[in-house]
Amino acid sequence: MVRKIKAIRLILLLLALALSLPNMAQLKHFTLEDVIPGGENYKNLQPENMTLLWWGNQLVKVKETACYVYGRNGQWTTLFSLDDVKAQCSDVKSLETVSFTGTAPVALLANSKMYLGYNWKEKKIVFLKKLKSGVSDIDYSAPSQMLAYNFKDNLYVESLIQDKVIKISDDGSRDIVYGQSVHRNEFGINKGTFWSPDGSMLCFYRMDQSMVPDYPLVDISTRMATLQPIKYPMAGTESHKVSVGIFNVQTGKTVWLQTGDNTDQYYSGITWGPDSRKIYMYNLNRDQNHLRLWQFDAATGALEKVLYEETHPKYIQPEHGLLFLPWDSDKFVYWSEKDGYDHLYLYSLAEERTMKKITDSQIGVVVDVLGFNPKTKSVIVNSTGVSPIQHNIFKVSLEKNESTLLGDATGVHKGTLSPDGAMLVDTWSSPDVPRQIDIINTANGKSVNLLKADNPWKSYAVPDISSGTIKAADGRTDLYYRLVKPVGFDAQKKYPAVVYVYGGPSTRLVEASYGYMYRGWELYMAEKGYVVFVLDNRGSNERGLEFENVTFRQLGKEEMKDQVKGVEFLKSLSYVDGNRIGVHGWSYGGFMTTNLMLTYPDIFKVGVAGGPVIDWSYYEIMYGERYMDTPQSNQQGYDDSNLRLRAGALKGRLLVIFGYNDPVCVPQHTLSFIRACEDAGTHPDLFTYPGDEHNMFGRDRVHLHEHITQYFEDFLK
Amino acid sequence: MVRKIKAIRLILLLLALALSLPNMAQLKHFTLEDVIPGGENYKNLQPENMTLLWWGNQLVKVKETACYVYGRNGQWTTLFSLDDVKAQCSDVKSLETVSFTGTAPVALLANSKMYLGYNWKEKKIVFLKKLKSGVSDIDYSAPSQMLAYNFKDNLYVESLIQDKVIKISDDGSRDIVYGQSVHRNEFGINKGTFWSPDGSMLCFYRMDQSMVPDYPLVDISTRMATLQPIKYPMAGTESHKVSVGIFNVQTGKTVWLQTGDNTDQYYSGITWGPDSRKIYMYNLNRDQNHLRLWQFDAATGALEKVLYEETHPKYIQPEHGLLFLPWDSDKFVYWSEKDGYDHLYLYSLAEERTMKKITDSQIGVVVDVLGFNPKTKSVIVNSTGVSPIQHNIFKVSLEKNESTLLGDATGVHKGTLSPDGAMLVDTWSSPDVPRQIDIINTANGKSVNLLKADNPWKSYAVPDISSGTIKAADGRTDLYYRLVKPVGFDAQKKYPAVVYVYGGPSTRLVEASYGYMYRGWELYMAEKGYVVFVLDNRGSNERGLEFENVTFRQLGKEEMKDQVKGVEFLKSLSYVDGNRIGVHGWSYGGFMTTNLMLTYPDIFKVGVAGGPVIDWSYYEIMYGERYMDTPQSNQQGYDDSNLRLRAGALKGRLLVIFGYNDPVCVPQHTLSFIRACEDAGTHPDLFTYPGDEHNMFGRDRVHLHEHITQYFEDFLK
Repeated sequence: MVRKIKAIRLILLLLALALSLPNMAQLKHFTLEDVIPGGENYKNLQPENMTLLWWGNQLVKVKETACYVYGRNGQWTTLFSLDDVKAQCSDVKSLETVSFTGTAPVALLANSKMYLGYNWKEKKIVFLKKLKSGVSDIDYSAPSQMLAYNFKDNLYVESLIQDKVIKISDDGSRDIVYGQSVHRNEFGINKGTFWSPDGSMLCFYRMDQSMVPDYPLVDISTRMATLQPIKYPMAGTESHKVSVGIFNVQTGKTVWLQTGDNTDQYYSGITWGPDSRKIYMYNLNRDQNHLRLWQFDAATGALEKVLYEETHPKYIQPEHGLLFLPWDSDKFVYWSEKDGYDHLYLYSLAEERTMKKITDSQIGVVVDVLGFNPKTKSVIVNSTGVSPIQHNIFKVSLEKNESTLLGDATGVHKGTLSPDGAMLVDTWSSPDVPRQIDIINTANGKSVNLLKADNPWKSYAVPDISSGTIKAADGRTDLYYRLVKPVGFDAQKKYPAVVYVYGGPSTRLVEASYGYMYRGWELYMAEKGYVVFVLDNRGSNERGLEFENVTFRQLGKEEMKDQVKGVEFLKSLSYVDGNRIGVHGWSYGGFMTTNLMLTYPDIFKVGVAGGPVIDWSYYEIMYGERYMDTPQSNQQGYDDSNLRLRAGALKGRLLVIFGYNDPVCVPQHTLSFIRACEDAGTHPDLFTYPGDEHNMFGRDRVHLHEHITQYFEDFLK
Repeated sequence: MVRKIKAIRLILLLLALALSLPNMAQLKHFTLEDVIPGGENYKNLQPENMTLLWWGNQLVKVKETACYVYGRNGQWTTLFSLDDVKAQCSDVKSLETVSFTGTAPVALLANSKMYLGYNWKEKKIVFLKKLKSGVSDIDYSAPSQMLAYNFKDNLYVESLIQDKVIKISDDGSRDIVYGQSVHRNEFGINKGTFWSPDGSMLCFYRMDQSMVPDYPLVDISTRMATLQPIKYPMAGTESHKVSVGIFNVQTGKTVWLQTGDNTDQYYSGITWGPDSRKIYMYNLNRDQNHLRLWQFDAATGALEKVLYEETHPKYIQPEHGLLFLPWDSDKFVYWSEKDGYDHLYLYSLAEERTMKKITDSQIGVVVDVLGFNPKTKSVIVNSTGVSPIQHNIFKVSLEKNESTLLGDATGVHKGTLSPDGAMLVDTWSSPDVPRQIDIINTANGKSVNLLKADNPWKSYAVPDISSGTIKAADGRTDLYYRLVKPVGFDAQKKYPAVVYVYGGPSTRLVEASYGYMYRGWELYMAEKGYVVFVLDNRGSNERGLEFENVTFRQLGKEEMKDQVKGVEFLKSLSYVDGNRIGVHGWSYGGFMTTNLMLTYPDIFKVGVAGGPVIDWSYYEIMYGERYMDTPQSNQQGYDDSNLRLRAGALKGRLLVIFGYNDPVCVPQHTLSFIRACEDAGTHPDLFTYPGDEHNMFGRDRVHLHEHITQYFEDFLK
């Protein structure tokens, strides 16, 4: 049943290494300061990295004090130094934020206070714009040398080279939001302004959220605590309304996309046509099961065509805009899960409504599109073609429908492509490769190594980390796990085990990257004598639609069945003490943890749930209704997953932790659960981080993991 | 050093009793349902009681279904029954809320929905007034048969016998409060309207709190959590302003007491002259160290005289209005701590500014004035004359300056006097007397017993509860303690011990009432094998001014020194395990608990702090500045007592619990402490009761004590 894929025998490796080192006993023990982001020694234990950018088709390495360009001979030559820039503008303290657009020898150095363009060939400043305090959502257009930004709730464009500021909106407020991300960052949306390719027009979101009530968060850090209200649209309630405007910089006029009634509609995937004359956009209904791809005239806002439609009995999740072919503005690549897996399709505007599938099943699921190579007429994609827990880069020929692997066949890769598509920077790791960066010729696949990171753990006692698969509760689907054994493992002993869980959509925790995507806390727990087990249940990411949407209208149910299969596997290991099984997770994982503690009280003895969803009717419309529909239309599903209604079933020890200022899983989740337990006569434990939001960062993250660990030490050990 | 006063050997008593009972082993064990208010069996374990009221000078016993009058022969005769009333008004469901005013055969039956007067001789309804929903702060005047009340923020009077409603104010709001208690119930204030003795005029408070900011409490029980703001004046900030109006029912006009500028002034002790023509009132400055007794003309509001002034270098705490002699309207009794102890003084309006002390040191400190006996020209007081931990009733002759004990010389008594002062109902208990009610002739001291409650614990295994004194940290002051030994005590064993602490002003925890004022939880902890120890440190109540105000400008400091003396005593007991000392307290006791954990980390291993003050600058102006002055004028004192600043000193296990909707010690106290611990890298534990305020009642109180007990079981046992 259990197929063991691979195991990192780092301990053996280190033992071998130890022959040349003084003594195994001198290996260091991980502390939370070593393994938790925010810990004092955390950065020192990360594999070496390199910041690489494309300046035109030339590769640039960025360091704090200088930028270097990569030569044909494989040498790095200084492009310019921080001192060069400082000679022109002493306000610049580091080159770490540098970026390039186009091929001009101009470095853009921007921060929240200023926008600076520096020409290193002429050693002079091209532009320098100081930004007003309070400016946000800055969007830069290279062709027009203009910025768009939000200031005091309204939208502005400002020239970097002229003394020209235009206020685009007048009625901006907390209720009317301009030029910012909408729909709570769902549907792949992460910004609110979109410059046309030629920089002549700015497409922007306007969101009316006057009908959305405030959730009353409280800031306790002021002299007297103060209200910190946030607009929060809860599932089943009235939602915000979004419009899309096009501002013409030349005429100073705005037209609006003629979408029709925008009640209960989502607009995403905004894409400019290559000629800056058309706008393409997705429209998804509130039920999220009917998608339309629209084409608008950018000059008038008129809806010209419905290019394509998709429907699905469960839901559709459009997350990517269109990608026009650089060599043919009639055609774009459309990214869709419509055949059950993320694949790419070629759409021709001339031949309306026809789609040609580009990627085939050899590609697995597409996780990223890096760009095109016009010479070879190919698209470069990142996908799970090699293994469901790997990401590898493929060149897919659009003409021949042929895919070729680029780079190493193991591990998890991330790529950035040069503008001409000829060269690829490939940053990757695999279970026993901490990090490697290669530069690859996409035409012939030839590769040169730029970085091989050293083993960052070499002076530490490292646990055994392995991965494998078990069968899901459906009896047929393979699920991937990561298993971390205690440091100094002794197969004759019985160890307590902690299941770390997320379990929600769009995420996975086990992949074939360094240490199988280990979390630092697992190393620490292994140090403390725990087995840690992580399983990606059905409902998680990158395994196709059916795998993911089995949870539809019943979040938690199938996911938990799979986690129980994981525990059965754990208990089958001779060295795991089946009476000491704990569980920990955050956010969706907090929901899973609480749910598992209530549903399987005889399996899980101790749980730590962070920022949990307790009642999906307290969660936001966009994410929540995708998976659960509305409380009105799915009362049963909402009741079945409402953990308040099962508060009386708590038997083990459960610690619930939340960020006191969490705007994502608002405190009402945790607090209403605590209240329900009080009413039911059960006794969870509680902790909070005032001032923190959905997650803890910096020193708080270290403190949090001390707190979590202590709870298992108190009650599971 | 340790003087043992007395010990209840209840176990021995029960053992003796057990000879006639089947077996000691069959004695029941206390559960939290037995001993915590709100527990299912709590009421059954309370000593029997009797509701007694004075109807004129006749004693009436109230039961749910009938009222009985006490005859000279010692027999109870039915006065009227619930059925009699129901025959006239079927809305009346119980007689439990009955009250009498004057000598007419009229029973007042009032609840939040109606006011009913029932004449039992004529078997008819005298008046029946249905109240509007939302009416609050109802104040009844018997002479005028009128009600005063607040409705939708404004003040009204309404006749019970006529169809007459008068709206007195127009500008009432959240900011402008009419006819309600002011100054946050400090200075003995608990209501906002004061009818003149003849019922012709209504004196009332008006409070402008527009300058007081809102503390943002949050109600999480609504569909989406909603803001529940409360006006909260924090120490050192701008305070509300109070005025006092006199409304004349006949003319319909209001005059205002001419107090002058009411910025930073307190007004309390409002007393009508017996002829309804004068108003007497205290004026205390914000610094609370200068008290004036003012006389006003009720018709015009003019300030006529300053009758008396008191100053003190620390603070003055006026808590009682004037008591005019029934037989001489020129004289009133003034209650003051000015000689260092609560005593009574006779003031003659004719001989201005002279005071004759009535009560002497034999009386100890006066804790209550029950009234006067005009025949014997005496005042009946309750005081600590017999012992600092007793309350006994004395008749004090105003002419002969002689005091006579009335009733039993042991225990803690509570009395209600008949209007003519001839008869006294004396309800009392002592360490081994659960409850007794006697009726006493105040002229000759003769007493008849009305009730002797049975031992409510007779079928339970009861711990040994004793009391004694130790010396305070000043080396000279006696402090009283209560010591509860584990059930099944074995002097050879070593037990963990929990100190229960309050420690703040105006309260004491040890008195010679039943079980030395035991708290039910102590019986339960004794059952679980803990020693429980309670000590009234310096700063607590009824021991005189110097004992109390030693804490001035440095709350916590001296109190903790005394508690450490208590622990030294505990540790001197052979059966106490000095390495397992816990501490628990609520409110001021939560402040003490947290402070003790941080200040004496090597003494206290485990603490549970409830609703604690963490920073006195977060506490309200009235109570806080009395003891601490303002943060501006006492920075050192505020810093020294600011527990946030010592969050890093936490070493043991500390659980902090708070009511999520606590309007007294607002959540900012606890939450800012948690935040400070997180910043300092220490690890308190936390719990909250959403919807609960400063204390938990009903089922939540049972849950709370389960939670508290579990914490000691987890970490102290």
